Amino acid sequence: MDVLNNHVTIRKFKSKPVEPELLDSILYSGTRASTTGNMQVYSIVVTTDENKRKELAPSHFNQPVALNAPVLLTFTADFNRFSKWCTMNKAEPGYSNFISFFTAAIDALLVAQNVCVAAENHGLGICYLGTTTYNAREIIKTLELPKLTFPVTTVALGYPNENPGLTDRLPLKGVIHHEKYENYSEAQIRELYAHKESLESGQQFVKENDKETLAQVFTDVRYKEKDNLFFSDKMLEVLKEQGFLESSS
Amino acid sequence: MDVLNNHVTIRKFKSKPVEPELLDSILYSGTRASTTGNMQVYSIVVTTDENKRKELAPSHFNQPVALNAPVLLTFTADFNRFSKWCTMNKAEPGYSNFISFFTAAIDALLVAQNVCVAAENHGLGICYLGTTTYNAREIIKTLELPKLTFPVTTVALGYPNENPGLTDRLPLKGVIHHEKYENYSEAQIRELYAHKESLESGQQFVKENDKETLAQVFTDVRYKEKDNLFFSDKMLEVLKEQGFLESSS
Repeated sequence: MDVLNNHVTIRKFKSKPVEPELLDSILYSGTRASTTGNMQVYSIVVTTDENKRKELAPSHFNQPVALNAPVLLTFTADFNRFSKWCTMNKAEPGYSNFISFFTAAIDALLVAQNVCVAAENHGLGICYLGTTTYNAREIIKTLELPKLTFPVTTVALGYPNENPGLTDRLPLKGVIHHEKYENYSEAQIRELYAHKESLESGQQFVKENDKETLAQVFTDVRYKEKDNLFFSDKMLEVLKEQGFLESSS
Repeated sequence: MDVLNNHVTIRKFKSKPVEPELLDSILYSGTRASTTGNMQVYSIVVTTDENKRKELAPSHFNQPVALNAPVLLTFTADFNRFSKWCTMNKAEPGYSNFISFFTAAIDALLVAQNVCVAAENHGLGICYLGTTTYNAREIIKTLELPKLTFPVTTVALGYPNENPGLTDRLPLKGVIHHEKYENYSEAQIRELYAHKESLESGQQFVKENDKETLAQVFTDVRYKEKDNLFFSDKMLEVLKEQGFLESSS
């Protein structure tokens, strides 16, 4: 399937806005994704206003792509709307808890990927911003997200102004297991990651960051334990603030 | 985009197996999805063996679709493989924490949706099994999933043996917000859910369960607070067992 197989992340966009009818058509395709019990417990906040995008940018660590894209889509787990509907219909909603958050997050993420596929099918380019969960509290404030909602990912969207090549992937056998999980031997790991380690881009990362191995670029520079622990605590705090950590005990 | 817009959930499959080459091609399209830092921190466990599928079925509450489908795909957040690679390369992995779990879950879910789109594009049918997170502990045991992995969703896959119609969705404006989240008035909620409430299938649910409103079918029968609290506690326990809740404090 060409649209899926040719996916590349786009970080430079033309200034041309995305036509509202096209955007609606893409978002509609998103909403056709499966959701738990067909409850559709997600919302999508569309940001096109330049000032609002500037307001969001620090929450995405001012990545150039966050400012450069004409559209930001914030995919949000949302049990607020559904709970309101319950309350209005003599039903007591019970969704202030972790499994409900995760259910809503799944809904939001499947919709997000459908939206990306639809966008690329129409010649648009996309970039996922993984910063969303790191700075959920700030995004919640900027987008005025109420209790029982939580932003899980953001997609930057627009007409591509670059044409990058396909990026590397592990061999298929590296991510697939048959019947049960077969844990990896050292020899297998070496084989699976050999191509990634051989790439010039990776070797440049190693050199630029004065590291010995590509793995160290990930552990010491890009995804450090200290940061991960900080953002883990923060995300759990924000889940609590948003009303998603009620406990039975 | 027809493949996306015509998606329906399939719960009855032909006994015809899915050809291994076709399955590989679909899974390959899955792996072209974006992942955080291109780390690909997910694994897919493919279950086709009938005995293994029977072993998995109780973890999916013996839903007929779990036994009826010739293929079950368990999409698993996986920092085990990546961490092994780090350790082998003089790098100290720091992924035993909640944000790393959630990052890996996002990776796994975007891949899952790509796999579903590719499958439907090839004439196959799919059904998501939301039971995966409820019974993650049992699935971990059956599939021998190691520490730093966690099953986030399962897709039942095969050739469709039914032809259901499109299911209802909220109007697009009901899930989209412009520039910021606009909270819903009671009048808006009534308007958005009017179609869902009017459907015969929903009214039958209400009658069968001796309820007064459709919302009560969700809160009192299908997604009850008591169950949600039980499965929330359980999921958090299993995340801890799998090594994903290390804290800085």
